[in-house]
Amino acid sequence: MKPNNKTTGIRLRIVLQPDIAIGPGKADLLEGIKKTGSIAAAGRQMHMSYKRAWTLVESMNGCFKSPLVQTNRGGHKRGGAQLTQTGERVLTIYRGMELASKKAIAKDMRSLRRLLADMSQ
Amino acid sequence: MKPNNKTTGIRLRIVLQPDIAIGPGKADLLEGIKKTGSIAAAGRQMHMSYKRAWTLVESMNGCFKSPLVQTNRGGHKRGGAQLTQTGERVLTIYRGMELASKKAIAKDMRSLRRLLADMSQ
Repeated sequence: MKPNNKTTGIRLRIVLQPDIAIGPGKADLLEGIKKTGSIAAAGRQMHMSYKRAWTLVESMNGCFKSPLVQTNRGGHKRGGAQLTQTGERVLTIYRGMELASKKAIAKDMRSLRRLLADMSQ
Repeated sequence: MKPNNKTTGIRLRIVLQPDIAIGPGKADLLEGIKKTGSIAAAGRQMHMSYKRAWTLVESMNGCFKSPLVQTNRGGHKRGGAQLTQTGERVLTIYRGMELASKKAIAKDMRSLRRLLADMSQ
């Protein structure tokens, strides 16, 4: 969940209501679940404990009108998970926000970078 | 330094180079120093330890071409601090980024909010 500072660019956290927020961590987790079909696997990719991944999913599921992640509790796909339509929509909107924001600040980003000390030596 | 999730809106962190970032916490600290003329007072306003506030200032001062915060180590103004021209510039650019970003995502923000469960009951 700790969005790292290793790659340059923006980290955007959206506080929708007091204590209800979505940021890079939750977005990456949703994307991981979409790709791996598993909350555990998505969490592992992010070096997140299973408990932490579950807690984040439950918190997201609880604050939207319908859940973002659906889990299969039985049968062959036991333990599997997918994004619901709402989950896909939230992820798409968030990624769009990141992109829009990145474009909107590109010029300022260059201005800030010019003020940085040269660390390349 | 922990930007809270109590007020709705965006939290923007800009990673300028690996491990060199500015976000709401550092921006608020710069603004606090500008207003109070003191690193300690600015830190206190943010419920930050003096050590933490100093560490953040030193880290910011170290990564730009010239320091963002200037301290007075002697005389009547002992302990006082001000933003340098570069400090003012960095703060202004960052606040501009916040505003540009906020505008760019306003529509998406409304879309996301419509998906939220009604917590008002």
